[in-house]
Amino acid sequence: MTELTHLDKSGNARMVDVGAKSDTERLAIARGEVRIGQAALSLVREVKTVKGDVLAVARVAGIMAAKKTPDLIPLCHPIMLSSVEVDFTLEEWGIEIEARARTTGPKGVEM
Amino acid sequence: MTELTHLDKSGNARMVDVGAKSDTERLAIARGEVRIGQAALSLVREVKTVKGDVLAVARVAGIMAAKKTPDLIPLCHPIMLSSVEVDFTLEEWGIEIEARARTTGPKGVEM
Amino acid sequence: MTELTHLDKSGNARMVDVGAKSDTERLAIARGEVRIGQAALSLVREVKTVKGDVLAVARVAGIMAAKKTPDLIPLCHPIMLSSVEVDFTLEEWGIEIEARARTTGPKGVEM
Amino acid sequence: MTELTHLDKSGNARMVDVGAKSDTERLAIARGEVRIGQAALSLVREVKTVKGDVLAVARVAGIMAAKKTPDLIPLCHPIMLSSVEVDFTLEEWGIEIEARARTTGPKGVEM
Amino acid sequence: MTELTHLDKSGNARMVDVGAKSDTERLAIARGEVRIGQAALSLVREVKTVKGDVLAVARVAGIMAAKKTPDLIPLCHPIMLSSVEVDFTLEEWGIEIEARARTTGPKGVEM
Amino acid sequence: MTELTHLDKSGNARMVDVGAKSDTERLAIARGEVRIGQAALSLVREVKTVKGDVLAVARVAGIMAAKKTPDLIPLCHPIMLSSVEVDFTLEEWGIEIEARARTTGPKGVEM
Repeated sequence: MTELTHLDKSGNARMVDVGAKSDTERLAIARGEVRIGQAALSLVREVKTVKGDVLAVARVAGIMAAKKTPDLIPLCHPIMLSSVEVDFTLEEWGIEIEARARTTGPKGVEM
Repeated sequence: MTELTHLDKSGNARMVDVGAKSDTERLAIARGEVRIGQAALSLVREVKTVKGDVLAVARVAGIMAAKKTPDLIPLCHPIMLSSVEVDFTLEEWGIEIEARARTTGPKGVEM
Repeated sequence: MTELTHLDKSGNARMVDVGAKSDTERLAIARGEVRIGQAALSLVREVKTVKGDVLAVARVAGIMAAKKTPDLIPLCHPIMLSSVEVDFTLEEWGIEIEARARTTGPKGVEM
Repeated sequence: MTELTHLDKSGNARMVDVGAKSDTERLAIARGEVRIGQAALSLVREVKTVKGDVLAVARVAGIMAAKKTPDLIPLCHPIMLSSVEVDFTLEEWGIEIEARARTTGPKGVEM
Repeated sequence: MTELTHLDKSGNARMVDVGAKSDTERLAIARGEVRIGQAALSLVREVKTVKGDVLAVARVAGIMAAKKTPDLIPLCHPIMLSSVEVDFTLEEWGIEIEARARTTGPKGVEM
Repeated sequence: MTELTHLDKSGNARMVDVGAKSDTERLAIARGEVRIGQAALSLVREVKTVKGDVLAVARVAGIMAAKKTPDLIPLCHPIMLSSVEVDFTLEEWGIEIEARARTTGPKGVEM
């Protein structure tokens, strides 16, 4: 890497021109971990197995936030997401999160 | 119908993958009725025939809200609307509303 | 009612001045019914009792939409909601929805 | 003026702290002119006197945009607008616009 | 020009149907001037040459606002921008701004 | 902790009622680290010392995202932020970020 593509030659921020790029299928996968105490984790587990909305709310939040990425990342292009999935795995130390977003277009979800 | 397509096999919400679907032209029509009292309805009528903004504001609100659908319906894909029209018909009992939204793409406005 | 308060004397839309009104506690309750076929309703019931996200997604959608009201209703003031609750009751004919929004301020959630 | 208040001492952008300021009533008035050709202006006039939505749409756009100011101006605080009015005057050379926004709070609409 | 295309035959606002239009490459260029006093202009100059964020914040604001155009202009279609650039030139009397937005699609950025 | 306050007794998500809470001053501080390779880090350093927008864009993104929190965190109340600051420290291994948000109100930025 010898330059930052989101800056022009004068160092000014810009939304990079993708007009000449052709459509390809793109997939981004992001993983994260939320480490929480045993008391809170027990509550999440318990609520999950019974009826509570804890992980459902978090999953919806993730899916809706994925659609808002161009509103949050200043130089990100508008993106037509073709699918978004958010998975949670309860571990001993907390919660593992994996999010997958797909699009077909001239710019990637991997930005 | 034997399954809810917006849930995966574990019952988790997801934005369904439409990456493999081809573009088709799609049209959604929704109708609704607003029943209001005679006094309010008279005011709407009167203002309409003179110069007031009552129905114009409502029409703009409907068109702008149509563009915000993916922000409001959590599992809805981003949609490139190609047209939106909102019609009002003043009836004796209130106002009949018909909204029509069109798109060409892999997912429908009918969701 | 002899006038529409959201129009000025010329019939022009405006966001009504509430600068001189004092803070009061306000509560709005809205009810609606979604009538759906037995097959779909059975799926909602089944998923609910097991682990699925159907009603949780709908509840989150309702709460987030409540916060977006000033973005959707053109002449609505910004509102500092102090609570939002959305309840679903599964009936034989479909789903009954009750939403309650509270605020303390110079303008109401009842607009 | 000897400094730009929206930069800290290192020149970094920040949302200025208004936590210690007390509430006052604030009013901002902005005026602008749209100069358009006679043909277009005649259409605006004609539609206005009959029934069309031209100026009503523009008025609603102005009111809704006022509510979105903190989304558009990066260092602007959230603002609880207490009123917004947008007036148009048709002149020979085009349209004069006056917008007035009011708020009561620790930061102004005049930013 | 003999009609306003964003109104239907009854003068009602609508989002014009572009479903039958084919994709073309489109470019919009807008220029504006901000006239400010010498004291403020000196501060902008000084901060710019050192390290401050003044013009960077303005540039980001312009790029993000370009993505929000369909949220601000009621009858504007959703647009997949392929690039946005915002340039500032410091003049004696203030700042000249040139913004360029590109898209490939059935409707233009020139609306 | 014996319960999750953002769920009601049936496990349903809700926006907790803060109507009875009085205003207090609240401050939230969050820290994070972005670990990036030496080549990218050198570019960030170099651009920073010359004139580029890298950290300015990131800072603006952080400030604007802070204002969007209620749009992103489903059960978060609307919050009137009184200040937001985002600081970056370039370290050998990457960038350390510290963000501080303040509000005066019945609910906290610490949610």
